Amino acid sequence: MNRYPLLDSLQSIEDFRRLPDASLDALAAELRAFMIENVSKTGGHLASSLGAVEIILAMHRVFNSPKDRFVFDVGHQAYVHKILTGRRERFSTLRQKDGISGFPKREESEHDAFNVGHASTSISAALGLARAMHLRGEGGVAVALIGDGAMTGGLALEGINDAGQANMPLIVILNDNNMSISPNVGSIQRQLTNMRMSRGYLRFKRALVRLLDTGRFGKWLSSHMETFKNRVKSFLLPNQLFEEMGFSYFGPIDGHNTQELIRVFSRAKALHGAVMIHVITQKGKGYAFAEKNPERFHGVSRFDVATGAAAAAAKKSNSEAFGEALLELAAENSSVVAVTAAMPLGTGLCPFAKRFPKRFFDVGIAEEHALTMAAGMAAGGLRPVVAIYSSFLQRAYDELLHDICLQRLPVVIAVDRAGLVGDDGETHQGVYDVAYLSTLPGMRIYSPASQQELQSMVGMALLRQEPAAIRYNRGSLMQALLSTPIAFGKWEIMRPITPVTIVATGCMVEEALHVARELDVGLVNARFIAPMDEALLETLKTQCRHVITVEDAVVSFGKSVALRLSPLPVTQIGVRDEPVPQATVAEQRAICGMTRADIAAAVKEAL
Amino acid sequence: MNRYPLLDSLQSIEDFRRLPDASLDALAAELRAFMIENVSKTGGHLASSLGAVEIILAMHRVFNSPKDRFVFDVGHQAYVHKILTGRRERFSTLRQKDGISGFPKREESEHDAFNVGHASTSISAALGLARAMHLRGEGGVAVALIGDGAMTGGLALEGINDAGQANMPLIVILNDNNMSISPNVGSIQRQLTNMRMSRGYLRFKRALVRLLDTGRFGKWLSSHMETFKNRVKSFLLPNQLFEEMGFSYFGPIDGHNTQELIRVFSRAKALHGAVMIHVITQKGKGYAFAEKNPERFHGVSRFDVATGAAAAAAKKSNSEAFGEALLELAAENSSVVAVTAAMPLGTGLCPFAKRFPKRFFDVGIAEEHALTMAAGMAAGGLRPVVAIYSSFLQRAYDELLHDICLQRLPVVIAVDRAGLVGDDGETHQGVYDVAYLSTLPGMRIYSPASQQELQSMVGMALLRQEPAAIRYNRGSLMQALLSTPIAFGKWEIMRPITPVTIVATGCMVEEALHVARELDVGLVNARFIAPMDEALLETLKTQCRHVITVEDAVVSFGKSVALRLSPLPVTQIGVRDEPVPQATVAEQRAICGMTRADIAAAVKEAL
Repeated sequence: MNRYPLLDSLQSIEDFRRLPDASLDALAAELRAFMIENVSKTGGHLASSLGAVEIILAMHRVFNSPKDRFVFDVGHQAYVHKILTGRRERFSTLRQKDGISGFPKREESEHDAFNVGHASTSISAALGLARAMHLRGEGGVAVALIGDGAMTGGLALEGINDAGQANMPLIVILNDNNMSISPNVGSIQRQLTNMRMSRGYLRFKRALVRLLDTGRFGKWLSSHMETFKNRVKSFLLPNQLFEEMGFSYFGPIDGHNTQELIRVFSRAKALHGAVMIHVITQKGKGYAFAEKNPERFHGVSRFDVATGAAAAAAKKSNSEAFGEALLELAAENSSVVAVTAAMPLGTGLCPFAKRFPKRFFDVGIAEEHALTMAAGMAAGGLRPVVAIYSSFLQRAYDELLHDICLQRLPVVIAVDRAGLVGDDGETHQGVYDVAYLSTLPGMRIYSPASQQELQSMVGMALLRQEPAAIRYNRGSLMQALLSTPIAFGKWEIMRPITPVTIVATGCMVEEALHVARELDVGLVNARFIAPMDEALLETLKTQCRHVITVEDAVVSFGKSVALRLSPLPVTQIGVRDEPVPQATVAEQRAICGMTRADIAAAVKEAL
Repeated sequence: MNRYPLLDSLQSIEDFRRLPDASLDALAAELRAFMIENVSKTGGHLASSLGAVEIILAMHRVFNSPKDRFVFDVGHQAYVHKILTGRRERFSTLRQKDGISGFPKREESEHDAFNVGHASTSISAALGLARAMHLRGEGGVAVALIGDGAMTGGLALEGINDAGQANMPLIVILNDNNMSISPNVGSIQRQLTNMRMSRGYLRFKRALVRLLDTGRFGKWLSSHMETFKNRVKSFLLPNQLFEEMGFSYFGPIDGHNTQELIRVFSRAKALHGAVMIHVITQKGKGYAFAEKNPERFHGVSRFDVATGAAAAAAKKSNSEAFGEALLELAAENSSVVAVTAAMPLGTGLCPFAKRFPKRFFDVGIAEEHALTMAAGMAAGGLRPVVAIYSSFLQRAYDELLHDICLQRLPVVIAVDRAGLVGDDGETHQGVYDVAYLSTLPGMRIYSPASQQELQSMVGMALLRQEPAAIRYNRGSLMQALLSTPIAFGKWEIMRPITPVTIVATGCMVEEALHVARELDVGLVNARFIAPMDEALLETLKTQCRHVITVEDAVVSFGKSVALRLSPLPVTQIGVRDEPVPQATVAEQRAICGMTRADIAAAVKEAL
């Protein structure tokens, strides 16, 4: 019971503020142990939160939440914030149905100023909050905590550009662990590396800048030669990237030294302008297995605390199946290149990267660039395959439309994590892609029902000279033992058409197959969402009296089928319009009425 | 006939390459006169192209298109490129039906390496082309020409971040006229201003950097103290923004001095890495009226060359009507703020900006930031209204979904230029918004049929605490003389329901009204696309035997109506799935089968 004596003594954020400074390091240790214990049981984003313990302690010592507004980029770093602001008791329900969210949520606490999930939103959101506080005369500082990985996202860079000239009290804490999920890439990262290596200059710089700002010579310089002063500062500062963007820059600072963080945060708070605080941390800090392998402990399932071992995934994931297929195709065709936005591991591209390093492009968290750059590659004669999660592909909607589809460029998009994704909840659901991909002119949408289909479809899409998206769910599609060859645009009749027939697509085919066998009705595997199999639809129209569609997305495929089969009644099973909250995928299917039982009920009603 | 003697002598790009250097200035003058003469008759993007004459002459002298690949950001600057690469004869058909495009188009010429229209794509696309040339062993340099306005877009910044470390032959020519369409904003712009003012340093810098690079002392420094050398460079260079991002930086350079441009481009070409060439130009150069008022001459209709006077717009535009309404509402409610992404004039917000400068936020070309920042403002208690063109809103799809809708934040989006837009063609059509907005959870879509409805709806949307989009077309909605009061979510029965009834929305109501009167059938004005008027749909279902829907978008509203009215037959009139090419709006409606005659034909067929 007294494993967490300090934590036990904190009932509210006020209790925390009263805690003596001397206890903070001990509290940090307790918080780490508490998070490791809990996340080992619930799963979660462990490594990020372990790295940000001292930063968040210092934030809550210096700033006055909720009057000051905290925005956590992505939100993986926010666990300590949640624990300190009244959610410790419920922490064991993390990411579970009806439990607390893995991300900040305004509905959960007044201390969560803005909901997050996707990367790179925090600076823009915090600037909006700062402007609101200013115009409403509320005082208060907006604080954005952002990882270095998210800094390469265009939205973050747009936010910095506006914030740098906004003259608003906005503090950006850059938590720099040289990792997003995988190690980072790009010029900004190289700059951060330069900064990281430059701590030796800081003392000298501090003294001299102070002299320039306050000394007599400095004052004379300030009033007469602003430009020259900036030059001198520039000479002393190893890097001015952020100062050039209009921010006051502090750093780099040891992100595991709470007292130093408190000192610097306090100085930043007093400035009342745009401040960038560059903090160096170690991802996974305090848990040896996570320190050694932060990529694996970025988002984890349940694991054994003593050994760091996770429950092994029994089956080959769809991502792995995709990666395998692409590797094979790339060996045959030297034009094939792979593009990812900071997700080489998650999308199954590590073997490709290892085998074909010169044909592998990880552009960092920059989905828009990934797609437009791929469009350029396709225009130049390459065959790019962009592997990306459905939810993150949303960032590149205009690039899909404007740069790829309007030019009919043959870019293949491997849409991973399509459909319901489970415990990440609303922000990560890959359920909108069918709707937004379907309206793109000329876009082909492949929807494999098995891993064999998935692998064949990668090859088929690469043979065709047109924009293509292959969508597949998180986890593992079924193994197809007896599968008919895939013909482009054609659906597969898995069980002969009956007056009541199920038309299912993607991972839902497996579920529908159980029901169709049990109730002895027809089943069509809709391997393509665009184009539709118009001939088979005609057959259905003449031979059926009721059709049931099943899809793992906000119902769009079903609507298209219903429009074509009209006036035939079509029961459309799929994700409802309301955002689907965190739970297991099975629970989420139950929430949406997409389980085998739901499908069976629909069939029985039609019968 | 010999107004353009030099131009007349050029039949191909090879002819141009053979032209003596001494003739280039005279050619530039001819090109300006030719463009002014033509665009005064066709309309077009004059000011940008006038400013970039010498840049494009120099590009075609130094680089070898199509082997070297030119990507023009946005594409407004490309007129001279088009004229030099075999499209002079057809230049009088600019932006007209079946004529040459106002933008680069791969279908038009092998010299157009990538299609454009939206801002900030060029660096990513050029990097993709450079990587393709490299992997295919083709040699060649990719050249992106980008305006300073487009540099603030997140996509451009993501592109720079990747390009800066890619080690590819990629030359970015930054055409800096301190304007996008309106004068620019943001930190990057301030940096560019600093650079612009620093030409005095250049001579000194050049000499010293050369010493550091080549002299004995410099070589010793290079090998022993790379960091120190960079410091010294930094001390001499007024700004290192781009060098810090991994680019070699040349500039600023006089963008109207062809010989200087040729010299610098040649040096850049020899470097074979990422190079940023910063060129200062005057937008509208060579046409006094455009120099004085570049904003007005950014995109112009036909005008009188001698006076610069354009044919006056007869009617109040929808943008003006929106701006008027917002101004009035803002006077009553101090929480109301306006946000635009570089379009204060185009969206009718100039009067607002003048009256409420502290409540007006132009974030530059940064649509994603505009939406997420507005979400932050709404979370902080303000009532932001974001005015944006439908086509550009595509950039912020994820921000709409993830930051606004999932949090149900009350951001009002004024979706200007929704529907067919005319001569800008495929890239600018605002025809996808209904499809992508309709699937966003909780998003309300207002679709006014008259300017009075538009103005009322701005007020109504601000009264309700939810995400809202008000979509209206380019030009002028009808004036509603006798309009029933607007009830949220309710449609208006404009003519009593008959067995065959038209349900029209937005600007198409005016067209449908003519038909309904003529053929004496029922007409419903669908003022809301989301939510639908379910009660009225029930009435239609019982009282009609055929319904015709009419919308100015890729058919989506019609599909929703058809699904709800099933099994009633519903003829769905709207934009087809194929991209609609440049033409007048009237011609585009004819292409899509959306004219009064088409509507009448559908009604007659149903009768």
